[in-house]
Amino acid sequence: MIIVPEREIADLMTREAAFEAVERVFAAMAAGEAYNFPVVREAIGHEDALYGFKGGFDRSGLTLGLKAGGYWPHNLAKRGVINHQSTVVLFDADTGRVHAMVGGNLLTALRTAAASAVSIRYLAREDARVLGMIGAGHQAAFQLRAALEQRRFEKVIGWNLNPEMLPNLEKVAEEAGVPFEAVELGGMREADVIISITSSFEAILGADQVSPGTHVACMGTDTKGKQEVAPGLLARAVVFTDEVAQSVSIGEAQHAVAMGLIGEGDVQQLGAVINGAHPGRRSAEEITLFDGTGVGLQDLAVASRVVELAQEAGRAVMVDF
Amino acid sequence: MIIVPEREIADLMTREAAFEAVERVFAAMAAGEAYNFPVVREAIGHEDALYGFKGGFDRSGLTLGLKAGGYWPHNLAKRGVINHQSTVVLFDADTGRVHAMVGGNLLTALRTAAASAVSIRYLAREDARVLGMIGAGHQAAFQLRAALEQRRFEKVIGWNLNPEMLPNLEKVAEEAGVPFEAVELGGMREADVIISITSSFEAILGADQVSPGTHVACMGTDTKGKQEVAPGLLARAVVFTDEVAQSVSIGEAQHAVAMGLIGEGDVQQLGAVINGAHPGRRSAEEITLFDGTGVGLQDLAVASRVVELAQEAGRAVMVDF
Repeated sequence: MIIVPEREIADLMTREAAFEAVERVFAAMAAGEAYNFPVVREAIGHEDALYGFKGGFDRSGLTLGLKAGGYWPHNLAKRGVINHQSTVVLFDADTGRVHAMVGGNLLTALRTAAASAVSIRYLAREDARVLGMIGAGHQAAFQLRAALEQRRFEKVIGWNLNPEMLPNLEKVAEEAGVPFEAVELGGMREADVIISITSSFEAILGADQVSPGTHVACMGTDTKGKQEVAPGLLARAVVFTDEVAQSVSIGEAQHAVAMGLIGEGDVQQLGAVINGAHPGRRSAEEITLFDGTGVGLQDLAVASRVVELAQEAGRAVMVDF
Repeated sequence: MIIVPEREIADLMTREAAFEAVERVFAAMAAGEAYNFPVVREAIGHEDALYGFKGGFDRSGLTLGLKAGGYWPHNLAKRGVINHQSTVVLFDADTGRVHAMVGGNLLTALRTAAASAVSIRYLAREDARVLGMIGAGHQAAFQLRAALEQRRFEKVIGWNLNPEMLPNLEKVAEEAGVPFEAVELGGMREADVIISITSSFEAILGADQVSPGTHVACMGTDTKGKQEVAPGLLARAVVFTDEVAQSVSIGEAQHAVAMGLIGEGDVQQLGAVINGAHPGRRSAEEITLFDGTGVGLQDLAVASRVVELAQEAGRAVMVDF
């Protein structure tokens, strides 16, 4: 068995490798070569923790396994360890034996950022120059870094419920040599690409605060009740997602579907665009929207890649299991 | 993180330790202190494999985690490794971090044998002297060994669809100093305790082939469609199980419930007997039946125990994860 501890991930994994792994598995999902298992998610009644498993199998890459873990809200305050804790376990698809165990904390941030980056690569206008960020937390910095590599952005604009966190975004933008500007939500009309990455339970971005031709990546909604944008925006947009079943039930599309503004058939797999089965953006005026709900296969894909990188770098811990 | 490889389990784990771990977690389940998560079980479309996860949380013992793995039917013929492959991953319930990884193959056999042994301890007549075995495969040997320790058995009788496998049982009985006799199914009327451990999809043991006062442990039925005994036997018996929801849906009770012979309310948790909340056997004439469906908490309980034993014995592999 190969072990790649959490502390090794930052040195081994790159944004490029995460991008390629997520791009490939989205394509495999749309081609029917990869599927996610039912998600187990339990409030265990101890430490207010949410715990569960996201598993899947990618036949094309023979990637089998699960991410286990969850959210322990008191970790940081009580024990000084981060609240999100996850671990990926990979299995040999030919035999069922354990193949590898990989720290999943940093990988989760990288694979989520890679998902919106893939959506920008395939759906944003080539001439997109202004990137709008809604949300300025830990995940937002990862999102921004990955997004900036997809187009020749000339400005980042940002909004956060608590404006004191906006320097998190400013720092990342400046590191990339791109100026940053704090805006009101109405200011998002200037953006060619908007990423929302919050844990909001009500719409932040209005349908009229998005200009024609914009690509919007909604990355925060992964649970029933969460919401980042007005349902009317989904009615105006061509909607893509990682997994349709999740999009319409626990993703951003849940609200527009519940209100009857769009149907499940209006939600396309981003992987179909990658595969060439869907044309993607069809005009400079179209609004495209990616509903990134987060699937286990993304975790398995990046974990599988980091195992290869660890082996190449001679940094995999081998245990005779 | 602590690692206990499969090869260490045989030296570390005892039948007594498995018995105590399973007894304790059945009691915790009946007391509402421990519960199993929804089971994920997938035919992955590769190597005809069945793969999945059984998770759970025992608040009383702070045992949290899952058993992952499954059944790869071509392993033995194609690769010389066993077909059932499983691994237990335990998490720190206080923080969500990985605590241990434990080989789950031998543990699965031991925890299944421990379950029927616990049922015999609590439900069989004290004066039980004849033990009947239906099934003579790999698991049956584990069942027989554990069962023989629960009463002063003077004879083992056995039946198997393929009689050439009966020497598997004879060998175990003789090692325990108890004579063995092959019988027809009608011969099971002599038994005071009967264990069925097959992968049958139709009833083997008839309702009239069981004498009053017998305890029957049905250990083979863990899937919709599987069946070991006539539904009429459940109507004659007082029925106990590890988990009621599984018993009536994928366990031996599924058929009697579907036929309306018994209701879900007629199936009791064995843990309630352990806790003293249910009297268990009420007369020397009553037939008691244990429907052992197998739950993730059993796996977690024995894995948690073997981690302690490995630490005590200085044989735990420590990995800085």
